[in-house]
Amino acid sequence: MTRNGSERERTTAGQRLAVDLNCDFGEGFGPYAFGHDDGLLEQATSVNIACGFHAGDPHTMRQAVERAVSAGAAVGAHPGLPDRLGFGRREMAVTPDEVYDFVVYQIGALDAFVRAAGGTLHHVKPHGALYHMAGADEAIAEAVVRAAAVFGSHLFVYGQSGTLLPVVAERCGLTAVSEVFADRAYRPDGRLADRRTPGALLERPEQILRQALAMVLEGRAYTPDGSAVPVRAQTICLHGDGRDAAYAAQYLRRGLQEAGIAVEPPRRNFAPG
Amino acid sequence: MTRNGSERERTTAGQRLAVDLNCDFGEGFGPYAFGHDDGLLEQATSVNIACGFHAGDPHTMRQAVERAVSAGAAVGAHPGLPDRLGFGRREMAVTPDEVYDFVVYQIGALDAFVRAAGGTLHHVKPHGALYHMAGADEAIAEAVVRAAAVFGSHLFVYGQSGTLLPVVAERCGLTAVSEVFADRAYRPDGRLADRRTPGALLERPEQILRQALAMVLEGRAYTPDGSAVPVRAQTICLHGDGRDAAYAAQYLRRGLQEAGIAVEPPRRNFAPG
Amino acid sequence: MTRNGSERERTTAGQRLAVDLNCDFGEGFGPYAFGHDDGLLEQATSVNIACGFHAGDPHTMRQAVERAVSAGAAVGAHPGLPDRLGFGRREMAVTPDEVYDFVVYQIGALDAFVRAAGGTLHHVKPHGALYHMAGADEAIAEAVVRAAAVFGSHLFVYGQSGTLLPVVAERCGLTAVSEVFADRAYRPDGRLADRRTPGALLERPEQILRQALAMVLEGRAYTPDGSAVPVRAQTICLHGDGRDAAYAAQYLRRGLQEAGIAVEPPRRNFAPG
Amino acid sequence: MTRNGSERERTTAGQRLAVDLNCDFGEGFGPYAFGHDDGLLEQATSVNIACGFHAGDPHTMRQAVERAVSAGAAVGAHPGLPDRLGFGRREMAVTPDEVYDFVVYQIGALDAFVRAAGGTLHHVKPHGALYHMAGADEAIAEAVVRAAAVFGSHLFVYGQSGTLLPVVAERCGLTAVSEVFADRAYRPDGRLADRRTPGALLERPEQILRQALAMVLEGRAYTPDGSAVPVRAQTICLHGDGRDAAYAAQYLRRGLQEAGIAVEPPRRNFAPG
Repeated sequence: MTRNGSERERTTAGQRLAVDLNCDFGEGFGPYAFGHDDGLLEQATSVNIACGFHAGDPHTMRQAVERAVSAGAAVGAHPGLPDRLGFGRREMAVTPDEVYDFVVYQIGALDAFVRAAGGTLHHVKPHGALYHMAGADEAIAEAVVRAAAVFGSHLFVYGQSGTLLPVVAERCGLTAVSEVFADRAYRPDGRLADRRTPGALLERPEQILRQALAMVLEGRAYTPDGSAVPVRAQTICLHGDGRDAAYAAQYLRRGLQEAGIAVEPPRRNFAPG
Repeated sequence: MTRNGSERERTTAGQRLAVDLNCDFGEGFGPYAFGHDDGLLEQATSVNIACGFHAGDPHTMRQAVERAVSAGAAVGAHPGLPDRLGFGRREMAVTPDEVYDFVVYQIGALDAFVRAAGGTLHHVKPHGALYHMAGADEAIAEAVVRAAAVFGSHLFVYGQSGTLLPVVAERCGLTAVSEVFADRAYRPDGRLADRRTPGALLERPEQILRQALAMVLEGRAYTPDGSAVPVRAQTICLHGDGRDAAYAAQYLRRGLQEAGIAVEPPRRNFAPG
Repeated sequence: MTRNGSERERTTAGQRLAVDLNCDFGEGFGPYAFGHDDGLLEQATSVNIACGFHAGDPHTMRQAVERAVSAGAAVGAHPGLPDRLGFGRREMAVTPDEVYDFVVYQIGALDAFVRAAGGTLHHVKPHGALYHMAGADEAIAEAVVRAAAVFGSHLFVYGQSGTLLPVVAERCGLTAVSEVFADRAYRPDGRLADRRTPGALLERPEQILRQALAMVLEGRAYTPDGSAVPVRAQTICLHGDGRDAAYAAQYLRRGLQEAGIAVEPPRRNFAPG
Repeated sequence: MTRNGSERERTTAGQRLAVDLNCDFGEGFGPYAFGHDDGLLEQATSVNIACGFHAGDPHTMRQAVERAVSAGAAVGAHPGLPDRLGFGRREMAVTPDEVYDFVVYQIGALDAFVRAAGGTLHHVKPHGALYHMAGADEAIAEAVVRAAAVFGSHLFVYGQSGTLLPVVAERCGLTAVSEVFADRAYRPDGRLADRRTPGALLERPEQILRQALAMVLEGRAYTPDGSAVPVRAQTICLHGDGRDAAYAAQYLRRGLQEAGIAVEPPRRNFAPG
């Protein structure tokens, strides 16, 4: 039986349906701002805050943490590769030991600001190239998870549904949160369809909501040609790049709630599948 | 009555005499090594580990922490200004708020490696230009102390004897540890004599020990012309630059112990004067 | 006789009146944009391109140079202190030798992109804290000028009217271009009035034009209380921060031209006063 | 007919035999030194100076250039990936356009110091991961060569014998200089044998000289099991890591000269094969 099978059973059995909406936050640097943070923060239930490697700096981090804590969002660390110029989007030939050290350092720094703001660090979601590497390379995934475990087994590990990171996190005793992208079509193998493929990007809010509902209620995403792919949707990534990002996020959140789905961050009594 | 007066009284009253020997540690970066870490680590009772701003990087920090913990040294954070090229030795026109953010970030990152190594962070000693700024500028001193306090009031704050940092730390409810330099002559105002002044640098191990004993037993340092200056010697800074640094440190440690002075890090039941 | 006296004489004698409008350009970094470059570029006759220390990176620099060359602007290097986080706005205790090395490095890097784009480097204007330091400290000014001279004595050195940098540049055999700020009131000593002083910021385009005309035609700026201060106006700095920066620049340029003043970059046959 | 065949013919025909000895130089950073520069500089006929990305900084670069120029070495730029922490040894997923910009920037900065020291830039040799990428990826090789060409077609491009970089350089109209490693065994395909293979590292000076002579005189290198591999030896890389690096370099240089081979940098009248 597949994991999606078991998820549907739980749903059928009447378990309360819930999903998290996460967004990246605090991605500026020094004099530079980035993205449309404010609007998204109102819709997101959890945020991933850059930790000074691919973006962010001590001041940006403190301010982002304070705003997120005061907005009531669950605060996560968003560690990246040490490549500010490339915004952490370029793969680098780093070793698992290097990744462990990078991630411990970054979570530690962010956790300090979270504690200073009276909050509690909630999760870790690797950024950019590190997110992809941790999904595809078991040793890198383990390095990320081991680094998260330094801060306690209560930390959630956000990783892409269908990749190695959630599997490795659970195996190491942490709780994984499987992430899906409601605004992207999927390939039959469960990976995201290339952005240049016609139909790969879902742009209209109704489209995005429709796929989000299918993801949460039925455990399915769709390929550009309409066939279904199994996914596990515990958190949905909100993108902040477009001009209408905040509106699309609000539309999505309302639509999910109107379908009876609680929009909330994963919590300690969260039952992994 | 001066603080040194009160210290002498406690000494006279038979209180156990003790002093800490601290040294900087883990000041390499990437492929680069720095200083003579290993020899000094054997003599030091506490170490100040660079946190990635003026020196250090995640890998260097992890290794330095592991070695220090396994050597039994008390592990402190050694935050600096964000100026790796200048090794944190150049003053920068930073605001107290910027200093607070820099120091929280750096202590947080180091604390994570200390926790991962099974240790407990013991103290904070600002580095280089930040050390001098925190000794001379009350708002900068407060920023450093507020940042340390994020990690708990048990953190000791190392600051130069006679400067503002120890005073501000105590006022804010943390325990200050006053630092002296046994290998440097002092000015009548209690600051270090300029390195270029004849007699400013004490180079022979016997000279250094003699001043260290005067500092610990009598609360005095000496100017180049031999007059006494009151100091409070709770920790002595070991320098790692010279070739004979480890030998000089060993000579100092033995000489202190032979004079009946315990060489050990400040501890929780440490009584501030 | 003051320099402004001699300038007025030349003007009276019928010499063609001209002024340059310069703006900072290419101040982004990696994924980050900064300012309102495009609109200002149309109005500016010369641009100062960040060189990778306080802002800019190799990609940003290449693109900025290509756009400036193709817009016909005179292209200058805008070297800053090595403080990207602080955008080069924080003074640092750097030595003149360090400044020389910083500036040679940065001009060299920018010059390479200018040559690759088929242009010729026109001037050097230090940025931020370095601009102020070079105006107030003779040794720093000399370091900047010596660094510029590496690239040939044809390079113009932009420095604030009334400060040391233009004086030192001329003394060292380079041609200085004295810069004024048409949107700022001045102090009686010729420095800019503090931004927090009432009347220190000229915001309406008509005010700015009026002061610019007084600067170019009469060699005077004004204090917040209306008294005149002598200035030499060879180039006017256009600010790109405000939303209406491009409009204000266009208004200024037209107003200057309507008053019979040529708006153009300093050229080789430019006669220093 | 292979290129090595044609090289042997030229040799047979009595053409003067010459080879260059190159070493990396100026690889320190800020307070950090690296390698055994001084001893090697006496033996090397050309040096590759780090440009501030993987190593080096403006001060280190100026000093290294001044020393190399005054020692009479041919001065080359040694651009690397923007990864100081990893010393430019980690591959990064950079695009050819990014590589072009990185290399233009770095050569420009170094060239400025060379001009300031009264020298002329002689060659470009990419560093570390960039060297390997430029040998294996045609678009990366072209990006490096296009960047070098900005500074004039007189610049030599150093690239590993048998890889793409020398081929692409010649095709683009620059003069390639094929590099060999006298202290490394080769694989049958002309690449370096893995360091962990028994026999991969030639450590004794006599061994290194023997292979160097075979490389220069016969166009052959050897595999760990003793079979010959064709190489073109126009420059030999001197390594500075080991303690005896300077002695080994001196031994090599003398041995080459005693075999009638001129040890000198490639010159303008250098005839590509």
